[in-house]
Amino acid sequence: MSFNTFGKIFRFTTWGESHGPAIGCVVDGCPPNIPINADDIQIELNRRKPGQSKFTTQRKEDDKVQILSGVFEGKTTGTPISLIIYNKDMRSRDYETIKNKFRPGHADFTYLKKYGIRDYRGGGRQSARETASRVAAGAIAKKVLGIKLGKKYNVVGAVTQLGILGCNLKNWNDKFIRKNKLFCPDKSILKLWEKYLLSIRKSGSSCGAVIEVRARGIPVGLGAPIYSKLDMDLAAAMMSINAVKGVNIGSGMNSAQLTGEQNSDEMSKKGKSTLFKSNNAGGILGGISSGQEIILSFAVKPTSSILTKRKTIDKFGKNTSISVKGRHDPCVGIRAVPIGEAMMNCVLLDHFLMHNAQCKN
Amino acid sequence: MSFNTFGKIFRFTTWGESHGPAIGCVVDGCPPNIPINADDIQIELNRRKPGQSKFTTQRKEDDKVQILSGVFEGKTTGTPISLIIYNKDMRSRDYETIKNKFRPGHADFTYLKKYGIRDYRGGGRQSARETASRVAAGAIAKKVLGIKLGKKYNVVGAVTQLGILGCNLKNWNDKFIRKNKLFCPDKSILKLWEKYLLSIRKSGSSCGAVIEVRARGIPVGLGAPIYSKLDMDLAAAMMSINAVKGVNIGSGMNSAQLTGEQNSDEMSKKGKSTLFKSNNAGGILGGISSGQEIILSFAVKPTSSILTKRKTIDKFGKNTSISVKGRHDPCVGIRAVPIGEAMMNCVLLDHFLMHNAQCKN
Amino acid sequence: MSFNTFGKIFRFTTWGESHGPAIGCVVDGCPPNIPINADDIQIELNRRKPGQSKFTTQRKEDDKVQILSGVFEGKTTGTPISLIIYNKDMRSRDYETIKNKFRPGHADFTYLKKYGIRDYRGGGRQSARETASRVAAGAIAKKVLGIKLGKKYNVVGAVTQLGILGCNLKNWNDKFIRKNKLFCPDKSILKLWEKYLLSIRKSGSSCGAVIEVRARGIPVGLGAPIYSKLDMDLAAAMMSINAVKGVNIGSGMNSAQLTGEQNSDEMSKKGKSTLFKSNNAGGILGGISSGQEIILSFAVKPTSSILTKRKTIDKFGKNTSISVKGRHDPCVGIRAVPIGEAMMNCVLLDHFLMHNAQCKN
Amino acid sequence: MSFNTFGKIFRFTTWGESHGPAIGCVVDGCPPNIPINADDIQIELNRRKPGQSKFTTQRKEDDKVQILSGVFEGKTTGTPISLIIYNKDMRSRDYETIKNKFRPGHADFTYLKKYGIRDYRGGGRQSARETASRVAAGAIAKKVLGIKLGKKYNVVGAVTQLGILGCNLKNWNDKFIRKNKLFCPDKSILKLWEKYLLSIRKSGSSCGAVIEVRARGIPVGLGAPIYSKLDMDLAAAMMSINAVKGVNIGSGMNSAQLTGEQNSDEMSKKGKSTLFKSNNAGGILGGISSGQEIILSFAVKPTSSILTKRKTIDKFGKNTSISVKGRHDPCVGIRAVPIGEAMMNCVLLDHFLMHNAQCKN
Repeated sequence: MSFNTFGKIFRFTTWGESHGPAIGCVVDGCPPNIPINADDIQIELNRRKPGQSKFTTQRKEDDKVQILSGVFEGKTTGTPISLIIYNKDMRSRDYETIKNKFRPGHADFTYLKKYGIRDYRGGGRQSARETASRVAAGAIAKKVLGIKLGKKYNVVGAVTQLGILGCNLKNWNDKFIRKNKLFCPDKSILKLWEKYLLSIRKSGSSCGAVIEVRARGIPVGLGAPIYSKLDMDLAAAMMSINAVKGVNIGSGMNSAQLTGEQNSDEMSKKGKSTLFKSNNAGGILGGISSGQEIILSFAVKPTSSILTKRKTIDKFGKNTSISVKGRHDPCVGIRAVPIGEAMMNCVLLDHFLMHNAQCKN
Repeated sequence: MSFNTFGKIFRFTTWGESHGPAIGCVVDGCPPNIPINADDIQIELNRRKPGQSKFTTQRKEDDKVQILSGVFEGKTTGTPISLIIYNKDMRSRDYETIKNKFRPGHADFTYLKKYGIRDYRGGGRQSARETASRVAAGAIAKKVLGIKLGKKYNVVGAVTQLGILGCNLKNWNDKFIRKNKLFCPDKSILKLWEKYLLSIRKSGSSCGAVIEVRARGIPVGLGAPIYSKLDMDLAAAMMSINAVKGVNIGSGMNSAQLTGEQNSDEMSKKGKSTLFKSNNAGGILGGISSGQEIILSFAVKPTSSILTKRKTIDKFGKNTSISVKGRHDPCVGIRAVPIGEAMMNCVLLDHFLMHNAQCKN
Repeated sequence: MSFNTFGKIFRFTTWGESHGPAIGCVVDGCPPNIPINADDIQIELNRRKPGQSKFTTQRKEDDKVQILSGVFEGKTTGTPISLIIYNKDMRSRDYETIKNKFRPGHADFTYLKKYGIRDYRGGGRQSARETASRVAAGAIAKKVLGIKLGKKYNVVGAVTQLGILGCNLKNWNDKFIRKNKLFCPDKSILKLWEKYLLSIRKSGSSCGAVIEVRARGIPVGLGAPIYSKLDMDLAAAMMSINAVKGVNIGSGMNSAQLTGEQNSDEMSKKGKSTLFKSNNAGGILGGISSGQEIILSFAVKPTSSILTKRKTIDKFGKNTSISVKGRHDPCVGIRAVPIGEAMMNCVLLDHFLMHNAQCKN
Repeated sequence: MSFNTFGKIFRFTTWGESHGPAIGCVVDGCPPNIPINADDIQIELNRRKPGQSKFTTQRKEDDKVQILSGVFEGKTTGTPISLIIYNKDMRSRDYETIKNKFRPGHADFTYLKKYGIRDYRGGGRQSARETASRVAAGAIAKKVLGIKLGKKYNVVGAVTQLGILGCNLKNWNDKFIRKNKLFCPDKSILKLWEKYLLSIRKSGSSCGAVIEVRARGIPVGLGAPIYSKLDMDLAAAMMSINAVKGVNIGSGMNSAQLTGEQNSDEMSKKGKSTLFKSNNAGGILGGISSGQEIILSFAVKPTSSILTKRKTIDKFGKNTSISVKGRHDPCVGIRAVPIGEAMMNCVLLDHFLMHNAQCKN
């Protein structure tokens, strides 16, 4: 049972509501003697934090993280690492209008029905603000794996589809992704994306996105049979992110349309290296990493909070309508990039430790 | 940690290799006093078992299940239910050729690299034969939910895409699905599918498929926040099935291309009923069931075992090629229908029990 | 896996070091709509906090708890409850002498060997200061059970042996326990205990203790077979408390010397009530509560930090000796009473929820 | 949640009732490439099996184990190991008298109240027959640890108190324990014990026992802080065995009566070895192994099934009395020796793997 805990050996437990005093997480099972400081975590949080460009929500949050335990003289001690981020820019009055109305596409309705009570301010626990904690945990996982797997280890995410606009994956450029606010991997399409997104925003509407995350430098053998498959855990990790509705590993849904010949990633040996002719498998065979690049993608639905008036009901069972003002991302998918990377880092570290547990001693 | 166990309260642990003496599972956490007998389980197993038509593998397995514990005088006692299915039609000689060669697309390579040893006969533990255990566990979950939720409860799966051929979802017909060997929901397309599949088979090739599973009669409130979201657990469940590469909840990957207005499932009240104008969410909001039909789909890649010769390597690190003879499904996706249903039943029962644990007492 | 998490459905994860900025815990799985505020928790923390009498350590800690999440308008929301207690009275210089030396009986040696690093200040994570978090979690469990089980529910702990001095259990008096600083249940012995403890303290020595915890108003049926037995989980809970070396359920170790006749708790029916002639079982049969009072006891070893010089080694592998000054409890067992109660409350709530999950729906 | 599963990485799930067709377990998380065969397991099962001497129950069970999965060509493959033992000598008629009556001291009453149904034949799931599965799992753990830790690794259990008769621990002799049917460690007392036990048996009564288990060759560092302490997990393991009512680690309950000076296990260095002057800690400091011998003991209550007539009630709520005939051990504690050893082996392997997971990679 783990309502608010993710992971098996490297585990993190998140807590906090959008408009409570703070949010945070407790990271357990981290290997000892790993150099880590608040800056290592802050760098990743800054990539996710709101209010950084005209493409995201205007809520201003420092997302300043503090380490409360588990690190001594700059190194992890193997004991739980408690991280806290105080909430600052809370305009709870913005949410008075949604106190009694259920926003379509949000969890307002289901949370209230499930628990009989909910903190409606900013969505409370449902808020994507929770994902800051994941990014913090992911920063620690990234640090550990960087040391354990060496410089070849590297996780990069990008937006590969913005609403109705795709991109050319052959133009994927890691450095370019790091430099633009939309995490766009294809320089040739960025301008168009920006224009499109601003028009979406101006109209008070929103759009969805597809995010792709790639991990390199992964050894063969991470993963476990049947109910701890690496792809199973990655799919769960991505699907646990707010607004995610679909997950693909490698060729994903498209693999349904391939023949056995097309789908087959033929293998060959060149010196000591094992080569694969293609990567439809997304680097995972039978739930276990093959040494190829691990590739997954996931779809984020359009932001449910839109200006356009929508029909809905209130908590008293009356028909009504709602137009959500507040401050919202026109495309929540964009800020999902560092979250997807964080979850990838966490799952890979967890499986690295699991593999060592059973197979390396 | 749960390498071979699925679930949180209603849990099952599977064991067994394709060509070992038997396979089976232990189902734990089942509520007591539920009438169940071997026939209830056999009915579901028969839907998955091989050798039933020209569209599936010709391996003949009775898949005869025995209940070894946990049931007394026809009722569950709340103690673990042990199920066993003896393997019968094993032609291990078929596998001598793959003893040393890695079949592309299979887990031969990764299992051996991970463990340093593998039971190569019929794929050993990697074999989809393991899924018979899931179907057995699912049959128990189905029985429990039928009693707890009443007659409205109902889970139906179908193949909605066979290789390059889709179908018309508006023609979805539960009864028709139950009557045809391809679990096709659309009468108008079946003939074409059959023709297509036979040609695939004749050519020694294979094709992928998309399976859709629908659950009705689910109360509002199943699911749990953040790391036990209902959709997260369903995605994990489906991705744990052999050869599955993608999972969609509701509109899934397509939701990326929708606007906020298009994606919004507007709500209204009619008498005591809560109505939704559409179901892009697939019946799940914020990880919690909304009372709508739960809809998910997943893609199964084409069978990796094909007659066409493919380049590969052997366990000694030499380049070679392979043509897999044996007896194989031209489309493993077809037999994935009862497996997807079983996993849906198991996840829903698990969340039903979890919900009761925290919120109903 | 749960290095720092306790419980199955009602779970808490603790974090923090003795001399770090703060300690705290995250409580997950708490039922919603339970009225709780910081005062409910503070009352219990005050019973454990140091510096309250001449019988405990003179470290002054307010142990002022703050609720950071999971409670909205005075009620639990079903989401994780994050609690934080800032450390105040830290004299880290006291610990410079133990920076390199291993205190016999402490975990200094084993922590350093295990992790290759340790926060030596005040024992770091090993410190019994962690138990404040348990008391906080226990206060929440107590509140929930008080509502779910009603007024009959009640957990009371006491010191029943102080070093070499026992007490007369027939004089057990709940009210008296609450009124004296030694949690002594027997008025006739208190004075002697106080005198004994002061002499122990004056001599710079320490003594052990036995704590007994009783729970009343427990329904029949809590517990689960085999590996979630109620007594198994209670034993684990008590043994997880610092310095605990033995646990008894009911007659405990003494039951070895009884005959079947003596040990047999004969049953009879009086009206609707089931009566037991004795309670050697401690209220638990086959791992499941019988409706009798649940009784357990545990032994706390004498405080390892003593003034008397002891032989030891340092981290460089040299022989040396140590005399631990600092501020220490002459008998850590005393402050273990509210901790034992807290763990009892947590385990019982956990099993109450587990029982509902499987058997009540 | 793990009603019927024990362990975290090395996990086993047991199933089966006393008078069902079979009992068994599934062992998961076992490292690959460990040579194991049915004989390795059978040897341990033979030490526990009934009907071997006049000191135990006369039920005749071969307890012949079969390995159904997870072992290939004589070696573990890292996949789940399924073990099955068919029940043979079942005289269910013996139990007709207890069908409706609750045996005092047994779980008849609590199981029925909890589940509303129970398999009364031979106690069903409550029966100590379940412990055969533990012994089987323990045999695997022992094999793994023997390879991982080398020849110094060794676990030995003995009966150290039989009813009212103790023994001289200074006479502890491993070889002698292996040779006598009472697992008595002290040659000078065996005759007296035998005489005493036969008289107990003749009178239709029963007696309790204390079992001590010692593990040698354990490296420093096994265990984990707070909620996975090695002693916590060992206490849980022992308390999960039928009829166990108390557990001591090292000096255990007696440590309450010691002073800090007496309890202090002073340390010194001799060459590269770390020496301890005494072992009150039982080889565990702060939940982590210190490299000393691990010593624990537990009390087994007298067999509840006795010939002497006892007052009880039946399931219809009537007062009645019962005299249990059947075939029973006069002291169930004796056969608990191999069970205690098995649980020690399982816990140690589990912690060995956990330690590797977090700290060795």
